[in-house]
Amino acid sequence: MAININFRVEKDLLGEKKINSNAYYGINTSRALDNFNVSSKKVNLHLIKAIVTIKKSAAITHKKLKELSPEIADAIIESCDKILKDEFNSEFVVDALQGGAGTSTNMNVNEVIANVAIELLGGEKGDYSLVHPLHHVNMSQSTNDVYPTAIRIAAIKLLRPLSLAFANLQEALQIKENEFADVLKLGRTQLMDALPMMAGQGFGAYARAISRDRWRLYKVEERLREINIGGTAIGTGMNATLKYIFLMTDILQDLTGLGLARSDYPMDTTQNMDVFVEVSGLLKSASVNLIKISNDIRLLGSGPRGGIGELSLPKVQAGSSIMAGKVNPVIAEMAAQTSMKVISNDAAITYAAASGQLELNAFGPLIAESLLESLEILTNAVNIFTEKCINGLEVNEGNCIHNLESSASIVTALVHHIGYDKASEIAKRSLKESKTIKELCLEEKILTPEKLNEILNPYEITKPGIPGMKEGKKQ
Amino acid sequence: MAININFRVEKDLLGEKKINSNAYYGINTSRALDNFNVSSKKVNLHLIKAIVTIKKSAAITHKKLKELSPEIADAIIESCDKILKDEFNSEFVVDALQGGAGTSTNMNVNEVIANVAIELLGGEKGDYSLVHPLHHVNMSQSTNDVYPTAIRIAAIKLLRPLSLAFANLQEALQIKENEFADVLKLGRTQLMDALPMMAGQGFGAYARAISRDRWRLYKVEERLREINIGGTAIGTGMNATLKYIFLMTDILQDLTGLGLARSDYPMDTTQNMDVFVEVSGLLKSASVNLIKISNDIRLLGSGPRGGIGELSLPKVQAGSSIMAGKVNPVIAEMAAQTSMKVISNDAAITYAAASGQLELNAFGPLIAESLLESLEILTNAVNIFTEKCINGLEVNEGNCIHNLESSASIVTALVHHIGYDKASEIAKRSLKESKTIKELCLEEKILTPEKLNEILNPYEITKPGIPGMKEGKKQ
Amino acid sequence: MAININFRVEKDLLGEKKINSNAYYGINTSRALDNFNVSSKKVNLHLIKAIVTIKKSAAITHKKLKELSPEIADAIIESCDKILKDEFNSEFVVDALQGGAGTSTNMNVNEVIANVAIELLGGEKGDYSLVHPLHHVNMSQSTNDVYPTAIRIAAIKLLRPLSLAFANLQEALQIKENEFADVLKLGRTQLMDALPMMAGQGFGAYARAISRDRWRLYKVEERLREINIGGTAIGTGMNATLKYIFLMTDILQDLTGLGLARSDYPMDTTQNMDVFVEVSGLLKSASVNLIKISNDIRLLGSGPRGGIGELSLPKVQAGSSIMAGKVNPVIAEMAAQTSMKVISNDAAITYAAASGQLELNAFGPLIAESLLESLEILTNAVNIFTEKCINGLEVNEGNCIHNLESSASIVTALVHHIGYDKASEIAKRSLKESKTIKELCLEEKILTPEKLNEILNPYEITKPGIPGMKEGKKQ
Amino acid sequence: MAININFRVEKDLLGEKKINSNAYYGINTSRALDNFNVSSKKVNLHLIKAIVTIKKSAAITHKKLKELSPEIADAIIESCDKILKDEFNSEFVVDALQGGAGTSTNMNVNEVIANVAIELLGGEKGDYSLVHPLHHVNMSQSTNDVYPTAIRIAAIKLLRPLSLAFANLQEALQIKENEFADVLKLGRTQLMDALPMMAGQGFGAYARAISRDRWRLYKVEERLREINIGGTAIGTGMNATLKYIFLMTDILQDLTGLGLARSDYPMDTTQNMDVFVEVSGLLKSASVNLIKISNDIRLLGSGPRGGIGELSLPKVQAGSSIMAGKVNPVIAEMAAQTSMKVISNDAAITYAAASGQLELNAFGPLIAESLLESLEILTNAVNIFTEKCINGLEVNEGNCIHNLESSASIVTALVHHIGYDKASEIAKRSLKESKTIKELCLEEKILTPEKLNEILNPYEITKPGIPGMKEGKKQ
Repeated sequence: MAININFRVEKDLLGEKKINSNAYYGINTSRALDNFNVSSKKVNLHLIKAIVTIKKSAAITHKKLKELSPEIADAIIESCDKILKDEFNSEFVVDALQGGAGTSTNMNVNEVIANVAIELLGGEKGDYSLVHPLHHVNMSQSTNDVYPTAIRIAAIKLLRPLSLAFANLQEALQIKENEFADVLKLGRTQLMDALPMMAGQGFGAYARAISRDRWRLYKVEERLREINIGGTAIGTGMNATLKYIFLMTDILQDLTGLGLARSDYPMDTTQNMDVFVEVSGLLKSASVNLIKISNDIRLLGSGPRGGIGELSLPKVQAGSSIMAGKVNPVIAEMAAQTSMKVISNDAAITYAAASGQLELNAFGPLIAESLLESLEILTNAVNIFTEKCINGLEVNEGNCIHNLESSASIVTALVHHIGYDKASEIAKRSLKESKTIKELCLEEKILTPEKLNEILNPYEITKPGIPGMKEGKKQ
Repeated sequence: MAININFRVEKDLLGEKKINSNAYYGINTSRALDNFNVSSKKVNLHLIKAIVTIKKSAAITHKKLKELSPEIADAIIESCDKILKDEFNSEFVVDALQGGAGTSTNMNVNEVIANVAIELLGGEKGDYSLVHPLHHVNMSQSTNDVYPTAIRIAAIKLLRPLSLAFANLQEALQIKENEFADVLKLGRTQLMDALPMMAGQGFGAYARAISRDRWRLYKVEERLREINIGGTAIGTGMNATLKYIFLMTDILQDLTGLGLARSDYPMDTTQNMDVFVEVSGLLKSASVNLIKISNDIRLLGSGPRGGIGELSLPKVQAGSSIMAGKVNPVIAEMAAQTSMKVISNDAAITYAAASGQLELNAFGPLIAESLLESLEILTNAVNIFTEKCINGLEVNEGNCIHNLESSASIVTALVHHIGYDKASEIAKRSLKESKTIKELCLEEKILTPEKLNEILNPYEITKPGIPGMKEGKKQ
Repeated sequence: MAININFRVEKDLLGEKKINSNAYYGINTSRALDNFNVSSKKVNLHLIKAIVTIKKSAAITHKKLKELSPEIADAIIESCDKILKDEFNSEFVVDALQGGAGTSTNMNVNEVIANVAIELLGGEKGDYSLVHPLHHVNMSQSTNDVYPTAIRIAAIKLLRPLSLAFANLQEALQIKENEFADVLKLGRTQLMDALPMMAGQGFGAYARAISRDRWRLYKVEERLREINIGGTAIGTGMNATLKYIFLMTDILQDLTGLGLARSDYPMDTTQNMDVFVEVSGLLKSASVNLIKISNDIRLLGSGPRGGIGELSLPKVQAGSSIMAGKVNPVIAEMAAQTSMKVISNDAAITYAAASGQLELNAFGPLIAESLLESLEILTNAVNIFTEKCINGLEVNEGNCIHNLESSASIVTALVHHIGYDKASEIAKRSLKESKTIKELCLEEKILTPEKLNEILNPYEITKPGIPGMKEGKKQ
Repeated sequence: MAININFRVEKDLLGEKKINSNAYYGINTSRALDNFNVSSKKVNLHLIKAIVTIKKSAAITHKKLKELSPEIADAIIESCDKILKDEFNSEFVVDALQGGAGTSTNMNVNEVIANVAIELLGGEKGDYSLVHPLHHVNMSQSTNDVYPTAIRIAAIKLLRPLSLAFANLQEALQIKENEFADVLKLGRTQLMDALPMMAGQGFGAYARAISRDRWRLYKVEERLREINIGGTAIGTGMNATLKYIFLMTDILQDLTGLGLARSDYPMDTTQNMDVFVEVSGLLKSASVNLIKISNDIRLLGSGPRGGIGELSLPKVQAGSSIMAGKVNPVIAEMAAQTSMKVISNDAAITYAAASGQLELNAFGPLIAESLLESLEILTNAVNIFTEKCINGLEVNEGNCIHNLESSASIVTALVHHIGYDKASEIAKRSLKESKTIKELCLEEKILTPEKLNEILNPYEITKPGIPGMKEGKKQ
């Protein structure tokens, strides 16, 4: 019958089920497809590949320990290699928001590896007597040790480019720090005119904030290196030999090139997800800095005429479908918006991590999906922000000077000489009468012109010290 | 030259750019692709289609008002119809996490509609003299009125199936309320043995919670109906005639079949996003109920032997890659996990909505993406939860009775007769000596066997009233 | 012995405990003090008073039903009245972050009422044979029906002044809408110069957003009116007679003056906290608007010289301990900051509400504390913001005109006449050469001076329609 | 006139104001009281004392540098000492939720110190010619360097007892790990019966999670040590000499005993709040662990008869006002609830930190209030949880064995010997027919009794290895 040809029949503890004969996945995946048609997202491919790498590593281990025949082991290894080369990406079909602690993802991988391996051995998909998804591919493993291990591997792999992205952003900011080092401008606190500063100094402050993020993201990798592979179902290691556990970790370390280490208490690593909350918390800190910096740049770039207008952002696209010539700070907005998304993902990770019960956390899929997404989008956002916004920033010296000079901010330099109250009065008059601080001081004969020039030198004001008093102060 | 054939050249205020000649999108979309390679998600198709519907509506309006030639208008209308039939889905390529307040999404739609229309008129893609993305497709519009209007249309369309999903869940719970109406079981507060109840009563409580969600989601639609189309860039309506504004709203109402109404203050509707926070807040309330109910069901279904074991959940897939025969409550987990995701999306929506500045909120794309995703995944999760979990729930009467009878919970029925302190003492002894409350009362000759039977009748205890005192009480 | 005189001894199921003889609270409160020394906050007095009102209502009910002797009932009633007059506020000592679903709060109230009543009857504190905290004060009640009922009563009482506060804010904004109705200024989208508008229009947009909050907060009260008093421990009503349940609700309605209604399914109302999530969600929506508006006002008031400077905020205090004369927008900051706190309280309420299990939610204390705090601080913040910021706002017409005229925003009025591309080009030149749009149009002889005057009339531009085309458009 | 006697008049840039003559605070504080009647909470005293310590340190520094006369400096120092001894706590009256970036808190401290010092010098409160709040107490300082420095000092001081609290909790858990090391019980994943384990192993997993929190909280202190004192208003150090900056930091380090270090870029430390987000993120990680552990303990302690009943929690108070004899896990609930509060405070801190603008973050007060509260309540909650819950936990061996033996979980030990499918079938029969796995295996003659005893030895199953195969496996 024509229809029968297109299906094969597989069986599990719930009974038989027809599987499309082209599919490399099997009955467990098929049931998961029926059960979890929740979102439009599939499982993150970085996670899939980390699991495949674990499977390959297990096959190599079992082969070395002679716990698996060389034929089967080699077929599994070759199958994994093909999958890692993106040949079967479309076979990983289970929903990112699946229930079940990741079992469906693990089974999806087991089944695809098995069926690819079966074909490599000349068999037909579904003939699990040749290579069995559970007995061979999943040998000595449980979703409960594979899945948390895989999240860690995928997360470390994504952390590195993220850390690099922050390093590049830091460097780009430092270039601007130097480039704008001699541009005097008005500093603002609570959006109100404050003290003079150099435009470069502001970028120096940004660069230092970002350098902390870079450092945090670099350092936190070590927290992810401890893996529970070998712990099997609840961390006790049942059905995994000690020989396997040790060798498996070594081989996985080799295959990944990451400094992975065997957890000395796999039951902890299996059930507790706090490490992912820690990492996500640092992504959140980084996002806070990114929001702050990108908002500042939008603020300083506001205008071009009716705003502060001290910075010019690179033009990357037309900004309006109606307002001709309008260009918007879309890259900075994207950076802030991505950061908000990372912050909201952190809420999901926190909630899921706190919802573990006893020997397992059932909500690993939400943790994995949210954490890996945050790592990816933040990396992209930071790189784009660096390249398409920071690198091309220009300072508008004219506006900087204009804003500084029309403000009364420089009056603070006089406080030490004439007192806070008199200085306040002068500042008030300056704003009311639109006269400069210096004019008013001369008018009121408060200090000599020479002394005023010495005190009100804006370049001096941007450095520590009491303006007009080289030797310090006395009261 | 071969290569030139595959590209056309388009121009915008930044200059010229090569566009793949197969692409129906144009230069603005192409720049957005360069700028926003942030996430792996494209803009939600429900949003795209809502925008296309707006464009179609505008073309009809302009045709009627004779502001657009019939040829151009008809080409745009036909183009929209083809797109709405999913023929060009792959042309909507801009990133869901784009910056720029939705301009790139609007331009992507304008460009695809224009190029499809151009071909319908016999022209070649890119020949915007025939149909122009801005002058014709976007006529009288701005992203700033199109985009918030489109979010509202898409959200209403997704709210309705969600409300229906909750109605079905409510009904399913009420069926269980009736089905389990006569099954006595132990009620628990703070996870500790409390008073007797009927298993059906618990489901009645769930059903009533869900009925509130259903009602809220039904009612809140009216808040979404007020649209700012016609407000153009900042809500003042510049470049849109009053005739257009009125007719446009009417036609859009017809095309969508939704009870849309013209905002009486478009500047408000353009810049303020609180309505989306309100809707998302209700999705969050609903998620809270879903987490509570699904967690309860997992708890009552825990075991099958080492837990509470009062419910049996339908088996939908094998639960473990290592533990033979294990079946897990994966559907209930999926429901809780999806709810957590909705809660975290609410954080993104709240953050983005609060980040509006002056006449616009730049973070509409994050609001749209998060809100529409929440609506979709919650609908799916509720439907799956109803069909694959609630509908198939069975109560284990044996375990219910066993748990009830071995507890001392019934002692509260005696409080009115023997005082709180004496009752506490009996309860303590009951647990210590593993004797029933009745046995101990008889042993201590506290009340007659007849009176005890009357008081300790568990069926009576599950209703209002003082056990053993038909006429009320006196103290 | 001197020391014995200062203590009385009370007893509970854990044994005996010395209680300070001055204390009106008893052993249960004392144990709670030992157990929950967590935070520096006591239980919100609004909640305490709502519970006291419930106790008074129960005593009246029991007296009418002759379930309690008139002497005891009257003593309880008088005791409650004294407490409601703030005579014993310092006796309510249990920690706001107590565990135990509110039992300690309920017991604290029961004990204080009993001991005050005992003294009224001429007895000594601790002689519970006269008035017993449980048998008499708590008669027919459980914490599990008292506590959720009390949260609802307290919340409704706090919602009303909050709704009024928003009404006043709306009115204040509308006064500014009128006051600034004729002040032309620059509208901004994404912080960039957009189209002309009237300063009053911006306040009209704010007023309309706030009117939604006012309406939501007014409407949501009805969701809080359904109370589960009479449901006792798990909602089944055990130990409460039907007569009691009906009369109790009526009397409580009278005493509170609120439209309270008996829940038709108390088991639901006892265990499900979604209504508080709903209310808090609306506080969150309102907070989002408050953040938006207060941020806008800070932005428009930035400067006074180095910012946008279009608004002047009332000066309410010196702004800096170092910068003489500096005044900051501290009231607007307070409004935004309080809103952030409300948003974070919503996270606590959501988390706690989702953590209910089976017949009860153990985390009522966190819900109560967070919700009542949010209601109180938001009311205060809105009132202060209205009185000390909005009411005194002044518009700086000079800066408004200057910003508008130096921008190229008016070019959009030309799009219909000269096309988007030409308009973009003119805008670009305008910014580059610091010439006005009009100058450049005249220079390029694009339109006649008369036509230009007609088109570029900024007053017309702030209304719907195509500038320069009374009759509409044709393309 | 009598009334005049009770007031003194002070003056600031807004004009004159009457101050209660008993008050040690002055006009700035008084205005803040008028402006910020928002919440019922005053500023955290830990923050106040940290500021007082900074003021004392500044006075010592200025005295040494001869920038302040010895008389004034000594009066300030003595004043600070008296305040640090809690003699003037009630004078710190400004609202915790004040606007203005902490200026009101700084001014409150400046004024109280000044007036106490004035009295020490024999003057009358308000005679600021003797000691001036700004010129003397605030000399060389700005709120903007004092306030972030003070948050850091207060946070470090609170971090240490928190870290110690976690150390104690870890130790308490390890004691239980040892105490319950030989108690066999059922492990559960996704709330379903999984594999055998030792009761002690579960506590070992908790202990290791808590050890990470301890370590994180210990390590993160170093991030808080970098202080911006000397940066004055925007971090440039204007009005502070280099001599002062260096000596000030040294003296502050001495006075606090903390390893404080001068920020090498004070402008960064002044405006960026990411370090507080980082610390709060770790409090959130710790809270996640605390929720998980306390929920587990409540679950394992559920019952005593109708739940899992494997643990007995110490009884700390009566649990119900109606259900006689009921005792609830109130301490574990308190721990979880406090954790939820910490998680919600993190949202406030994140939001506030991301809301910094340019050279300052206006929302320091919310950050300070939330962070210090989280540190305090988490310390208290962990200590109470350790002492009143963990220390007194007992394991119910009978229930542990009963739950283990009635489950089919042990079947996984057979998978290697009889295959996953056969094992699944046996498990299914076991549950259906209520026969043990061993009985069924013997019935079906699957393995010899000797082999079965070897394989199904639960003690072996709780360790790595293949049950029944000493030498490993072969397939």
